[in-house]
Amino acid sequence: MNKKNIHLNKFIAVIGLGKAGLPLAAVIANSGLTVIGIDVDKKRCDKINNGINPIPEEEGLDDLVKNFGGKTLVASTTYQDAEKCCFFIVIVPLFIDENNKPDFTILENAFRNIGKLLKKGDCIVLETTVPPGTTETIVKNWLEEESKLHVGEFYLAYSPERIMTGSSISRLKEFPKIIGGVDQISGKIAFETYKQFIGHLSLVSTARVAEFVKVIEGCYRYTNIALANELFKISEEINVDFYEARKYANHQYCDIHLPSTGVGGHCIPVYPWFLIKEMENRNKQDITTMLHSSHCVNDGMIDFWAQRIIDYCKNIEKPLMQVKICIKGISFRKGVKSVYRSRNLALAKLLKEKGLKVYVYDDLFTRDEIEKMNLTFSTPDIVDVVFDSFSLELTNQEIR
Amino acid sequence: MNKKNIHLNKFIAVIGLGKAGLPLAAVIANSGLTVIGIDVDKKRCDKINNGINPIPEEEGLDDLVKNFGGKTLVASTTYQDAEKCCFFIVIVPLFIDENNKPDFTILENAFRNIGKLLKKGDCIVLETTVPPGTTETIVKNWLEEESKLHVGEFYLAYSPERIMTGSSISRLKEFPKIIGGVDQISGKIAFETYKQFIGHLSLVSTARVAEFVKVIEGCYRYTNIALANELFKISEEINVDFYEARKYANHQYCDIHLPSTGVGGHCIPVYPWFLIKEMENRNKQDITTMLHSSHCVNDGMIDFWAQRIIDYCKNIEKPLMQVKICIKGISFRKGVKSVYRSRNLALAKLLKEKGLKVYVYDDLFTRDEIEKMNLTFSTPDIVDVVFDSFSLELTNQEIR
Repeated sequence: MNKKNIHLNKFIAVIGLGKAGLPLAAVIANSGLTVIGIDVDKKRCDKINNGINPIPEEEGLDDLVKNFGGKTLVASTTYQDAEKCCFFIVIVPLFIDENNKPDFTILENAFRNIGKLLKKGDCIVLETTVPPGTTETIVKNWLEEESKLHVGEFYLAYSPERIMTGSSISRLKEFPKIIGGVDQISGKIAFETYKQFIGHLSLVSTARVAEFVKVIEGCYRYTNIALANELFKISEEINVDFYEARKYANHQYCDIHLPSTGVGGHCIPVYPWFLIKEMENRNKQDITTMLHSSHCVNDGMIDFWAQRIIDYCKNIEKPLMQVKICIKGISFRKGVKSVYRSRNLALAKLLKEKGLKVYVYDDLFTRDEIEKMNLTFSTPDIVDVVFDSFSLELTNQEIR
Repeated sequence: MNKKNIHLNKFIAVIGLGKAGLPLAAVIANSGLTVIGIDVDKKRCDKINNGINPIPEEEGLDDLVKNFGGKTLVASTTYQDAEKCCFFIVIVPLFIDENNKPDFTILENAFRNIGKLLKKGDCIVLETTVPPGTTETIVKNWLEEESKLHVGEFYLAYSPERIMTGSSISRLKEFPKIIGGVDQISGKIAFETYKQFIGHLSLVSTARVAEFVKVIEGCYRYTNIALANELFKISEEINVDFYEARKYANHQYCDIHLPSTGVGGHCIPVYPWFLIKEMENRNKQDITTMLHSSHCVNDGMIDFWAQRIIDYCKNIEKPLMQVKICIKGISFRKGVKSVYRSRNLALAKLLKEKGLKVYVYDDLFTRDEIEKMNLTFSTPDIVDVVFDSFSLELTNQEIR
């Protein structure tokens, strides 16, 4: 990298100012660099430029947006505004479709737009969690097609986000982060720039390894949640207190996870599919036994809980179909206002399908928002049975 | 417990002086108590009584057996010699049969023999890993039948061994250990006695919880080894260095295990069957998906490695059936002289069945011992391909 590039790298473009992108953009600004943030959401951009943090649950973000928003952290809906940047970070969502296949539409759009701005010597880093191999194949192709340049003339690397909504700022400062290039020089250039704002950074051999690292972390979580769910069902069957057993089973060599209604959200339940689908493409589906089984166990937990709730309702002195059941908590995770792949929501709908009187309550959602999901709102205090989906306890309030 | 009992508890019987029992017996003697050890192996008993440690690989055990053997650690093949004891610890093996069902023969024999000696106020603790519920059901029945006493007149508890051959002494001193009674008073009495020689001890609510704790620890290991094996196969398929990825994936919230030829030995591959078989008995086999899948993946690893070895052999300038292959390491774990459920041994036999020229080498086994297993001995230096089953590397030595 020549001196000119090092200088220009002071202007960093961050594409995507969502829950992952904005904290990163703010941390970069805080390190003394200038950030041009690009996001499709005009209102969000305006807020940021006025120093107002659109993600209040993110600890420490208020101050950063207040200090840098509209100054060295400028948000825009127009890619053209990032044309003077020589370093681009892409951190936009990747969803999977109804067949559990990754849908690259948003990602492709971001990279094609960057490709149009790309100059010789520029460096692009992807942070979105993707199937291993994505950066060096389709991402590279999109950029090369739009820019008419080749890797070697520009640099391309991958560095998975490892944030956790609520503590993303401290994660970026302290948690181990990795970066790998599609070639050696790309990795090195991306690493040197990232070192300016990331506290604990390691350079790995390739972008593909970095992609795989992020996906297998998710697979570890997903499989271990499935194991916890299975052991929980067994403990119920043999009349053992799972939580007591778990407390004493866990030590430095054992980390049994917590049981749940399943796994929701954009991350953990999605990443195993990146590997499952890739192996299907190669006609090697027989080597994804554990990931497949984990999916069956986790997604099957709503049937287990539905049965438990029904069994519990039989203790109430009312005909089963008259018992008022409240599912408390329908977001996919406590404290995050999203029902993406929420298993608690799926549980509420399952009970409703079975003809039961189901009500829903969640601190984060209004009556209106819940009714738009085709569910009935109720506060937990006026029902017969409350299922607190975040604590997994059945509470018979017996209020008539 | 009255004063007489507290006095008599200075004489502790330990039934089973194997890899788990002898270190425990030695640690008890080291705490100032007197141990009567019972074992079927006369030679082993003689060694111990002469101060000679029969398990030299166990760190720190030499000194303890030398100091206490034949003095306050007396070994005998006769249960009658333990008749003055009021506290009995059973730590004998439990195997599973060819249908993966636990075979309680050895355990039953030990408890029926203790039952014959049992006096009012005595306390018995089981340490062998068993299916949850064993202590409070069949163990209690054996003791009651033989002694004509009932629980309440004697005390019964369970405390799973958590040793690791090689570092058992330090494990007993430092590693968290738990104990639970078949009733509250049993738990309390057993706990008070154990506290005299166990460094880090917790009393749990029941014997059954303590049994479950030990089994689920094993299930965690077994499932996570299966996940590592699966992710390893996927990494090979997509051309990623698994070990590099694992290094960076693992952190405080992620513990991806190591791939292997499968899981052998008396512990980890056996414990999941305790739960699988119990659920089968209850017609609930559908809730052991993860454990079943883990078994399929782990036991299937020898097919994966056999194929890898065959593919590798094709690089050698010889007809496939002429390539000399050495499997280095056939014990189920490095440093432990046992082939119980060894998957490396199963791999050697599988390759032999396929008609390949297979040789076996293991530091711990003589030529004679290997030939008795119906395998051919060879040192690794005179073959074409060495499969080091403990490091999982293929080394083409190309020595002709």
